Amino acid sequence: MAVRVGILGATGAVGQRLIGMLDPHPDFEIAALTASPSSAGEKYRDVAKWRVDSPIPQEVAEMTVSATDPDEVTDDVDLIFSSLPSSVGAAVEPDFCEAGYVVSSNSSNARMAEDVPLVIPEVNADHLDLIEVQRDERGWDGALVKNPNCSTITFVPTLAALEEYGLRTVHVATLQAVSGAGYDGVTSMEIIDNAIPHIGSEEEKLETESKKLLGEFDGAQLSLNDVEVGASCNRIPTIDGHLENVFLETEAELSPAEAAEAMREYPSLDLYSSPDQLIEVFEDPERPQPRLDRTLGGGMSISAGGIQESTFGLQYNCLAHNTMRGAAGASVLNGELLVENGYL
Amino acid sequence: MAVRVGILGATGAVGQRLIGMLDPHPDFEIAALTASPSSAGEKYRDVAKWRVDSPIPQEVAEMTVSATDPDEVTDDVDLIFSSLPSSVGAAVEPDFCEAGYVVSSNSSNARMAEDVPLVIPEVNADHLDLIEVQRDERGWDGALVKNPNCSTITFVPTLAALEEYGLRTVHVATLQAVSGAGYDGVTSMEIIDNAIPHIGSEEEKLETESKKLLGEFDGAQLSLNDVEVGASCNRIPTIDGHLENVFLETEAELSPAEAAEAMREYPSLDLYSSPDQLIEVFEDPERPQPRLDRTLGGGMSISAGGIQESTFGLQYNCLAHNTMRGAAGASVLNGELLVENGYL
Amino acid sequence: MAVRVGILGATGAVGQRLIGMLDPHPDFEIAALTASPSSAGEKYRDVAKWRVDSPIPQEVAEMTVSATDPDEVTDDVDLIFSSLPSSVGAAVEPDFCEAGYVVSSNSSNARMAEDVPLVIPEVNADHLDLIEVQRDERGWDGALVKNPNCSTITFVPTLAALEEYGLRTVHVATLQAVSGAGYDGVTSMEIIDNAIPHIGSEEEKLETESKKLLGEFDGAQLSLNDVEVGASCNRIPTIDGHLENVFLETEAELSPAEAAEAMREYPSLDLYSSPDQLIEVFEDPERPQPRLDRTLGGGMSISAGGIQESTFGLQYNCLAHNTMRGAAGASVLNGELLVENGYL
Amino acid sequence: MAVRVGILGATGAVGQRLIGMLDPHPDFEIAALTASPSSAGEKYRDVAKWRVDSPIPQEVAEMTVSATDPDEVTDDVDLIFSSLPSSVGAAVEPDFCEAGYVVSSNSSNARMAEDVPLVIPEVNADHLDLIEVQRDERGWDGALVKNPNCSTITFVPTLAALEEYGLRTVHVATLQAVSGAGYDGVTSMEIIDNAIPHIGSEEEKLETESKKLLGEFDGAQLSLNDVEVGASCNRIPTIDGHLENVFLETEAELSPAEAAEAMREYPSLDLYSSPDQLIEVFEDPERPQPRLDRTLGGGMSISAGGIQESTFGLQYNCLAHNTMRGAAGASVLNGELLVENGYL
Repeated sequence: MAVRVGILGATGAVGQRLIGMLDPHPDFEIAALTASPSSAGEKYRDVAKWRVDSPIPQEVAEMTVSATDPDEVTDDVDLIFSSLPSSVGAAVEPDFCEAGYVVSSNSSNARMAEDVPLVIPEVNADHLDLIEVQRDERGWDGALVKNPNCSTITFVPTLAALEEYGLRTVHVATLQAVSGAGYDGVTSMEIIDNAIPHIGSEEEKLETESKKLLGEFDGAQLSLNDVEVGASCNRIPTIDGHLENVFLETEAELSPAEAAEAMREYPSLDLYSSPDQLIEVFEDPERPQPRLDRTLGGGMSISAGGIQESTFGLQYNCLAHNTMRGAAGASVLNGELLVENGYL
Repeated sequence: MAVRVGILGATGAVGQRLIGMLDPHPDFEIAALTASPSSAGEKYRDVAKWRVDSPIPQEVAEMTVSATDPDEVTDDVDLIFSSLPSSVGAAVEPDFCEAGYVVSSNSSNARMAEDVPLVIPEVNADHLDLIEVQRDERGWDGALVKNPNCSTITFVPTLAALEEYGLRTVHVATLQAVSGAGYDGVTSMEIIDNAIPHIGSEEEKLETESKKLLGEFDGAQLSLNDVEVGASCNRIPTIDGHLENVFLETEAELSPAEAAEAMREYPSLDLYSSPDQLIEVFEDPERPQPRLDRTLGGGMSISAGGIQESTFGLQYNCLAHNTMRGAAGASVLNGELLVENGYL
Repeated sequence: MAVRVGILGATGAVGQRLIGMLDPHPDFEIAALTASPSSAGEKYRDVAKWRVDSPIPQEVAEMTVSATDPDEVTDDVDLIFSSLPSSVGAAVEPDFCEAGYVVSSNSSNARMAEDVPLVIPEVNADHLDLIEVQRDERGWDGALVKNPNCSTITFVPTLAALEEYGLRTVHVATLQAVSGAGYDGVTSMEIIDNAIPHIGSEEEKLETESKKLLGEFDGAQLSLNDVEVGASCNRIPTIDGHLENVFLETEAELSPAEAAEAMREYPSLDLYSSPDQLIEVFEDPERPQPRLDRTLGGGMSISAGGIQESTFGLQYNCLAHNTMRGAAGASVLNGELLVENGYL
Repeated sequence: MAVRVGILGATGAVGQRLIGMLDPHPDFEIAALTASPSSAGEKYRDVAKWRVDSPIPQEVAEMTVSATDPDEVTDDVDLIFSSLPSSVGAAVEPDFCEAGYVVSSNSSNARMAEDVPLVIPEVNADHLDLIEVQRDERGWDGALVKNPNCSTITFVPTLAALEEYGLRTVHVATLQAVSGAGYDGVTSMEIIDNAIPHIGSEEEKLETESKKLLGEFDGAQLSLNDVEVGASCNRIPTIDGHLENVFLETEAELSPAEAAEAMREYPSLDLYSSPDQLIEVFEDPERPQPRLDRTLGGGMSISAGGIQESTFGLQYNCLAHNTMRGAAGASVLNGELLVENGYL
């Protein structure tokens, strides 16, 4: 029987991607959609400016949108996906958790909170049990689980695959697609024939979230990984797909061939939205490329290439679809993990 | 009286930029244009697919193109600018030098040769005297002087400005414009809504040329600078302007404010094409941007911004117009330096 | 049992799309691939620069490429798809037909020849019987069938839907994607932040091919339609999808609502690659848009919108995926029609 | 002595272009800047997000912005340039005229009002005398003069050049740059790898404004030109420069050569911002192109090309820089004409 789900922030860019993934999903059924108060009471088709390149699912189009408030959402919902602006997320997600909902959230608020699991299922599924700590501390029946920032998700799985070599330092430069900023986040005059070498607070996210994702959870407490990450973030004129250049120094010696093998063999999971191959590794140094490789594994694979010895250790490039693997798909995958682990 | 100049490879992207700079130049007069054998004997207007956004200078349009061979070029030329494909440059530039021509070349061949000065006038004008060594060794009346690769020129002046702090390591990621590959170098299907994380042998150029440019010349021999540079190069969908993310570790402590001041105060020269301000430093972390800032100082300034403390030291971004400051303008500036220093 | 097919020009942009459609096709089996002589004898994976955003089918990757010559292609092929440059097509397609092959060709040569059927299955399937005339005149066992130019295919179905109102004049302006020119047809420096108001001989194709497609075949001879078409063609910075602005004058009065209804009701076919809905009509005047609507119906639908009264009659916009519906898919559809009509 | 000017809506895209043109202008001196109430009292540098590719003029940066209200603007201003959103323009421009200011406006409100001159100086400078009628009717000491929409300005001068052949019908399709919609008008997700076949109420502007611009003013009343114009408007991913495809039918026969000659000989004016050559005509059918030709004549020339016989008469393409010739430059030119004709 399908799990009934609600989507907070259903009209935004990630909200639309969530609908695109959840509508055909065999284990989930969309039961509630929320948006800003001005859209409440309206049909979804009338308030969403639909810009995904497949039509709005018919049934979703006819659904009535609620305000983003636990009292306004139908009781008959088992799991909440949240893709709210972080300030809104910070204000209302705790209300949903308190009201008993389990929330799989893509919003950036509370990601680094000590009792909030920040999870990429293939990397640190065991962190999910931090929910017990969270429930104890906060007295919630529900729970709050976060997926990391899209730019973090892109490179952390490649680090996880190499963790046994001892991660020492990572310098990472990102080339990020405009969809990462939402529909109206980057104007055309800002980005055509241009690049912007700054994305507000993005660098900090890569630097801190990676340490938490790669950290160890002993059942009671989470300790951050020691890897030191320095990031520089850029916006470029691509629609979807974040590309990242990584310079990595490890404790143990690590050849390009060993790194490629470790990435290729890094296991995926059996969850419905997991790709068969988590990290696709290219031999062609010109790959991965956003337009050609972002949809690998249904948009849920990471791809890597250009693995080579660097002046300082190893360097390589990696790529992920930022609104699929990096946002909507990340939340859905966490939702699937929550179901599998019996947290509903 | 104007110095009469010839342009080798006059129909290419950099050749056209050279014409755009040299035609109105008060100290130079275009006296010869060369191109591939198939164009020899034709009028320039008929063989050049002119794509600069100002019209072909009338007189240049009517000039007859020669083959790229010292015997075919009118004797009455004092200085040669070369923007040939590197394989062609390697084959014919020595012939011109042997025939007595002083050649200011943008081609990548021979840049790292021990007796060939690789020069950015504001950075290492004193290396020009390597010409004496070169003439001794090769028995040339002419001389061969190189400017570095466009991506090297973009970040080396910022390093030169900080050299007193002791340069230890540099990690640099580049976001390079399509014009750097020449007119036909990048197809539209390759780059629209995309990025390519590899530019053949570009990374090596940044890593080695920077050590030579920042090296010391004792009058007899050039010793490379000890700075260790690791580079990762990307092509993005911009027309002109290379943007670079730099992570820098120095021997001495260096605050963002000190770095900004050192860059701002790094002196320009009095050469005709030198910008008033060599390095423009922005406070706004979203700058520099290729489309907004590439034409600063007539396309001859470097710009920098986003200077901040990094996990590992300092990080910042820099930008230069790749076909002006990074190619045609670099060669012209070297030509001006050759004239000023009496090498013609 | 699957029809065994060969692809002439298999390494090009349309050739790759043909492979992408034919490999999973239930009724066709790829049995031969040809390319230029320099690629003959090589494995497909080694000579094709694969740029479709899905991987090369494994079996196709390992196939050996032949020269484009009927003597070099395995005998065991029933149907040929051709996507050759038109000069090559003009030279070798007749050889294949003479050797007994039925050729469904996307190449522009011979499209207007009196005994060559130019077919869009949903529009003029009956023209296929011109093959009888062709075989009589040329003494071929094989046959040559053409699909029109990608820009012609985009607007002709909409005219066919309105034909009962009497087509008098059509002014059409096109905004065409770069893929229409092949991989290397448009360089990035030509088209980023730009548009090119000319595509060689394209305007003539729209003006003449439309008259043939809408013409009447009486079993012996084809008479051209009287509609007068004037076209103006532009290249713009989109990857896939040709958008066209149509101004139409008809004999009978025709309201926007009637036009929309006629387009919506214009029937599709039961062929495997036919879309369920041939012409998708949008109410939103901002649609269709290339990026959002080019993949409707698996890339085989036409879409239309902005239907309104004009100063001179009716005006509307239409769009089709130029390398799917406009090229590879058009040839495949003609191949399906040839099979269904017993021409193999 | 310089005329002191004020700019209404000084922070917008056209406002910034106005500042870029007026600051170095020998006959004008910027004395007042207005913006929305929230910016009033602030320094210009602090409220304008400056995105022109040259720095903010120093003095302008330090000016204090007023509210857009005649009582708030310093009395010491002789001429007002207005680039307000049309709803704001409709509300406040009459107040400025009533308060005695002569207003040269780019805003779209009131362009078709019977007593408001709509002027392109090189086309219909004599319409300026409609000011007398306007002052009589409205009792203003000031005056309101409009320039047409950017897409109208692009093609009307070419029609004016051909007017002696008798203009009968014009079908025009536009390919418009994103800057025409203002900084935030088109998001990057809307337009990268895309085109939008609709611009709200733009088609009507081309159709009606052209009839007024080409109309005749007998000293008392303006009669519209009989030319019938049908327009179809598209937004494409270019920064600046509107390209238009024109199909023209004339009363008298008109060859491409005659049309080219008439355009080339159509006179410019002696105003400071007039280009030497009003209409640049290209022989190369691939020109004009937005990126290459938009800055001809300092951005104030129109360019034309592809002039050829069409199925229905003549067809050609034309182009103008939409924020220079099509907006800021159009208003400045009207300001220069107002000064020359003694209307201040």
